[in-house]
Amino acid sequence: MKLIGFLQGNVRYVGALQDDDTVVPIAPIDDFYADSSRYLAEAPSGASVPVAGLTQVPPVPETTRVFCVGLNYLAHAEEANAQVPDYPTVFGRWASTLVCDGESIPVPAIEKGLDWEVELAVIVGETLTDVDGDKAMAGVLGYTVFNDISARDRQFDTTQWTLGKNPDRSGPIGPVVVTADEMESPNGKRLTAKVNGELMQDGNTSDMIFSVSRILSYISQTSSLRPGDVVATGTPSGVGFTRTPPKLLTPGDVIEVEIEGIGVLRNPVTDAAARP
Amino acid sequence: MKLIGFLQGNVRYVGALQDDDTVVPIAPIDDFYADSSRYLAEAPSGASVPVAGLTQVPPVPETTRVFCVGLNYLAHAEEANAQVPDYPTVFGRWASTLVCDGESIPVPAIEKGLDWEVELAVIVGETLTDVDGDKAMAGVLGYTVFNDISARDRQFDTTQWTLGKNPDRSGPIGPVVVTADEMESPNGKRLTAKVNGELMQDGNTSDMIFSVSRILSYISQTSSLRPGDVVATGTPSGVGFTRTPPKLLTPGDVIEVEIEGIGVLRNPVTDAAARP
Repeated sequence: MKLIGFLQGNVRYVGALQDDDTVVPIAPIDDFYADSSRYLAEAPSGASVPVAGLTQVPPVPETTRVFCVGLNYLAHAEEANAQVPDYPTVFGRWASTLVCDGESIPVPAIEKGLDWEVELAVIVGETLTDVDGDKAMAGVLGYTVFNDISARDRQFDTTQWTLGKNPDRSGPIGPVVVTADEMESPNGKRLTAKVNGELMQDGNTSDMIFSVSRILSYISQTSSLRPGDVVATGTPSGVGFTRTPPKLLTPGDVIEVEIEGIGVLRNPVTDAAARP
Repeated sequence: MKLIGFLQGNVRYVGALQDDDTVVPIAPIDDFYADSSRYLAEAPSGASVPVAGLTQVPPVPETTRVFCVGLNYLAHAEEANAQVPDYPTVFGRWASTLVCDGESIPVPAIEKGLDWEVELAVIVGETLTDVDGDKAMAGVLGYTVFNDISARDRQFDTTQWTLGKNPDRSGPIGPVVVTADEMESPNGKRLTAKVNGELMQDGNTSDMIFSVSRILSYISQTSSLRPGDVVATGTPSGVGFTRTPPKLLTPGDVIEVEIEGIGVLRNPVTDAAARP
């Protein structure tokens, strides 16, 4: 099943995308994540609605945490002149930074531009506390594409990357969540990033240093994962700030990230006037 | 005014604490933060309820972000063998880690214990985007006490502190929010931490390297601050992991943090069985 988030009136819903570009509403997002295995076991029924007329929203609760893993592809760690870490390098994003396919991304006034990072993101389906890798994988609801847009000046002001990873509206997610039964494995998926149509990143999820199961298990030892949480699993080589000369996104650019079997996220870049 | 959060049925409320240990309900938390200056301008009226019978909750929205500043007191940076940073060192906590006065804090099974960090926390009252220090201070709703309980093993597994700062239920906050009009200045306030009654930290908020106004302004350049967001301003010297021998909180201990003019947060420490 392919899931999207959208508004019905003021209520944020999850629905099942159909082949004819309509969506069948399943449940309000918070209700859905409170009992997702039951909702996913039933084929959604009810009237379908054309996607074109909908206001889409990120397909996760507003209280979702976004756990991001840095330096999880060898060639990216090397291009960033970073040591290959002994453990998953986890930093946090707040759900308020998430945006959908097509939404604009403003460049903060203090930055020369923004950088791109295509990533496979895991959507958690169950509460996971101190679990091993097998139990972690059994608790995965699905997979989606994430663009970990980064403000590099701020990211490297200090040792902690958090602010540089949380500019307003800097987290494109989607265009759909592919449920785990349909995706089968997160491995062996090609992931790419294009700036104004030019290929910048071209990797494969099989090249992760720490696997999805290892990352989820590791996080769960300290922070219980909860239904709807997002775990972004790192980006392959080809980001902008490590290029000679560096290349960053500025207003007018279009950034496009894609993962095989999930889809494409395409977002225009605008100036700081569009904040927050 | 002194504010607390509490449940009325299933709805999370903000109320005004009275001298007789009762509280006058003001509004549901999300409504309150959507228009806090109006709510605070009126003296709350209505029937007061004894605090003793209430279930308290953190006095902020569930979508709140907790921005934490590390290494913001010179003597603490020195005891941690860290360089004094050029900018505020910001890392993130998720609101799901927040707990109230009296709630227990579980030690994850992988940790030898947990560390304490008394901090002055700012509660944001308005949306702040790219503001200077004066505008930032005008947008402060109030101040509270925060205990930035830390899982040091996990914190230092990699360069990023996030997981070590987000164990389940590791963020005591309260016991009240003192509104900015009543607190006047965040400076010159004594802050202390005691373990089982023994004094461990004894600092003064005047010793911050980066002031509250500077921190808020700096964050707002990248991430807009929103009503209800929490900004924890760092801890003075005297934490546990830098002691010889190191001292950490283990099940059965009681950690007590206090800031002059706000109050005391007292939390028992339990074992991992209490997760999540």
